[in-house]
Amino acid sequence: MTSAESPKPQRIKPATLKGFRDHLPGAMLAREQLIDTARAVYRSYGFVPIDTPALEYSEILLGKGGDESDKQLFRFTDQGQRDVAMRFDLTVPLARYAAMHLQEIGTPFKRYHVGTVWRAEKPQKGRYREFMQCDFDTIGTTANASDIETLFVIHDLFERLGFRSFTIRINNRRLLNGLLETLDLTDSAAGVLRCLDKLDKIGAEAVTRELQTAVGLDAGQAAGVLALADLRGTPVDILDQLERRLTDSDTGQEGISRLRELFDACRRAGIDAARVQLDPSIARGLDYYTGTIYETFLDDLPGIGSVCSGGRYDDLANLFTSQSLPGVGASLGLDRLLAAMAELGLVSGTTTSAPVLIVHFDPAHVADYLATARRLRSVGVSCEVYPEARPLGKQLKYADRKGFLVALIAGADEFATGAWQIKDLRTGEQSETPDTELIQAITQALETETDTRP
Amino acid sequence: MTSAESPKPQRIKPATLKGFRDHLPGAMLAREQLIDTARAVYRSYGFVPIDTPALEYSEILLGKGGDESDKQLFRFTDQGQRDVAMRFDLTVPLARYAAMHLQEIGTPFKRYHVGTVWRAEKPQKGRYREFMQCDFDTIGTTANASDIETLFVIHDLFERLGFRSFTIRINNRRLLNGLLETLDLTDSAAGVLRCLDKLDKIGAEAVTRELQTAVGLDAGQAAGVLALADLRGTPVDILDQLERRLTDSDTGQEGISRLRELFDACRRAGIDAARVQLDPSIARGLDYYTGTIYETFLDDLPGIGSVCSGGRYDDLANLFTSQSLPGVGASLGLDRLLAAMAELGLVSGTTTSAPVLIVHFDPAHVADYLATARRLRSVGVSCEVYPEARPLGKQLKYADRKGFLVALIAGADEFATGAWQIKDLRTGEQSETPDTELIQAITQALETETDTRP
Repeated sequence: MTSAESPKPQRIKPATLKGFRDHLPGAMLAREQLIDTARAVYRSYGFVPIDTPALEYSEILLGKGGDESDKQLFRFTDQGQRDVAMRFDLTVPLARYAAMHLQEIGTPFKRYHVGTVWRAEKPQKGRYREFMQCDFDTIGTTANASDIETLFVIHDLFERLGFRSFTIRINNRRLLNGLLETLDLTDSAAGVLRCLDKLDKIGAEAVTRELQTAVGLDAGQAAGVLALADLRGTPVDILDQLERRLTDSDTGQEGISRLRELFDACRRAGIDAARVQLDPSIARGLDYYTGTIYETFLDDLPGIGSVCSGGRYDDLANLFTSQSLPGVGASLGLDRLLAAMAELGLVSGTTTSAPVLIVHFDPAHVADYLATARRLRSVGVSCEVYPEARPLGKQLKYADRKGFLVALIAGADEFATGAWQIKDLRTGEQSETPDTELIQAITQALETETDTRP
Repeated sequence: MTSAESPKPQRIKPATLKGFRDHLPGAMLAREQLIDTARAVYRSYGFVPIDTPALEYSEILLGKGGDESDKQLFRFTDQGQRDVAMRFDLTVPLARYAAMHLQEIGTPFKRYHVGTVWRAEKPQKGRYREFMQCDFDTIGTTANASDIETLFVIHDLFERLGFRSFTIRINNRRLLNGLLETLDLTDSAAGVLRCLDKLDKIGAEAVTRELQTAVGLDAGQAAGVLALADLRGTPVDILDQLERRLTDSDTGQEGISRLRELFDACRRAGIDAARVQLDPSIARGLDYYTGTIYETFLDDLPGIGSVCSGGRYDDLANLFTSQSLPGVGASLGLDRLLAAMAELGLVSGTTTSAPVLIVHFDPAHVADYLATARRLRSVGVSCEVYPEARPLGKQLKYADRKGFLVALIAGADEFATGAWQIKDLRTGEQSETPDTELIQAITQALETETDTRP
């Protein structure tokens, strides 16, 4: 345990790297709960998990997210003189993976991937150099059923996570492309999308100005683009208006038809119409998307931006294979969502995974404490035994600080009569129960406790 | 999506680095199941999750696992000219973490950590440069209750994973140290332990020889050490014999007393005595351990070695803090265990997370397929909708290859009469059910199916 340079242990200052974090138990319990919920929803739709290495050949990752992304790569030469880098997202690894294993996995292929990614960004509030992504995608099909299902997954996820109200904003790139066709602006698409993407942040006037100064549109064209943001009404109303405006564009008509089917499926599936809105002005910056696009906002915290975004793309892996792989998917912003859940009181704040603490009162009875804990576990009640005899007050303080709900106490007197003291840590009430009725009493105490939690 | 150097997409050969692996869905489903079970057991004892960064300052990691380990570090200079490296285990990060956050986490502290680690080892069958570890530890206490609980956790884990028969071999370093005291060999402890550790592999004769030639013991001393391996009987028998042999060693007597309490607690907790054996000859190479040690063997696959090992140590973090942090814990060999589970038929081999596939028979009814799938999910039945209309045979082949259990089929005729065809994919039987009774029929079909699974 000592380093080769120093024969005697020399103390090293314990520290984490800038932009990297340790995760304490309370935060980790919340993260595990969030990931478990996401996985359960993905799985309920038939998505299956995959994983890929943290390290890839640099050439696999370079140039996929632009110059900025290349600069942020943790890249080095390994022991075998290979040029390697740590993955910066889960999309490029999926593309490489799909190209390599297509024969084995077949299509349609529905996968989810929960994994850590690394970017040497300038650290700032809420931005880290190491963070988790949680993506799901359906690849190998252009079917609109998959677009609709992507929306359903996002909807179910936020419902299951306990958010009171959220809005999924939907658009289809073909509406925008159709409009640009009719305005003779097909070549300026990328620039127009980039401007339009700022609408929420800088407002209509500034976007109109930027469309003219930065992208070179004339006033009429800019107004035509901005008109998208002024469409009002139900999704069906908006689609009717767009259908009239885009009569000459096949691209636009296809986008309209796919969205009609999507909103119809929502209605048929009984999804609350207020939760799914058509917003023809959202663009989702990336050139990558070609069809339906998704953004998700928490109505109680609009300021944090979209917490789950995605869309349909034409070809995932054209850099790695000649086989065309269209797909659709979305990515859950885990860290942003955890911060939001904490702010909305959806995270419990306890730092124990067990509701019951057995107090270590009399060291002569350690085998009894341990055996009783096993009895509770055998009926599904998680239970911790305090490892050593310490003053009762100290052990109860430990229980309180961690958020245990019930403490079980027994000393020589109780063991002589075959009884336990059950202390409800939320109310402070204490009662005696015969050992033979312990399980029933604990189960009941926990049911009551759970009901009264905030 | 194109790199700055090449204006046109130039194909890159998709490949993973030597010693790194992609995880396909079947393997990942098994891994998730294993990790979920481990987490459930840890949590039932009150262990809580933590996480630490993949990258650390190199000085935190260097010299902690010996020269070999230092050479295997993925180490580089980051954009900020910091000397950084990827973690090679979860123990050194725990030490650093405990030293940094002690005030906040308090003691006793029971944590589990499931995480990826990296070692630039020479790749060989079953050895990878990236693999997952799954550790649990109780730190900040010397209590024997924690030693006993560590054993209980290992026991419950293997029982819950479905292994028919397994053996946890227990020893306590103090027995060995006591014996070495009585043989006047305290200074040779490390060498003796290293030799003794090879007993299973090279046999008693070779160990006796090596103790003399490599460590410098005389024949009597070597015989005295080897006598440990010859002790026979129940744990109580063996401890009685050792108690007589080690009367003069306080160290030895303390080890005996702790093991007596452990085996007594096993008996009181109703743990099958055949599963927990006392083996005074196991040493677990690492100098690190100072008390009770654990090894776990699968009786049906003895050749793969210990799949869960650990022990008690005197001080976790003396390189990072002056506060003494004794502890006890163990590490689950995830990859080895997954290979064993596959070999023993404990891994199902399916590559879907859903039992039900809704066939996409008539594109006019896509909203019905999607809505029906949601009805099934609402009662907890995972369900996939094939995304596009393809020949029935193709869709059933897809279902079969992935391991779906039931296919639901409906075309214009069925929608006209409000019925579904339910095809049991294991028996090939098909029956018609009214839509109003669909959920009941599917639930019943799945119950039957589950029962007949091998």
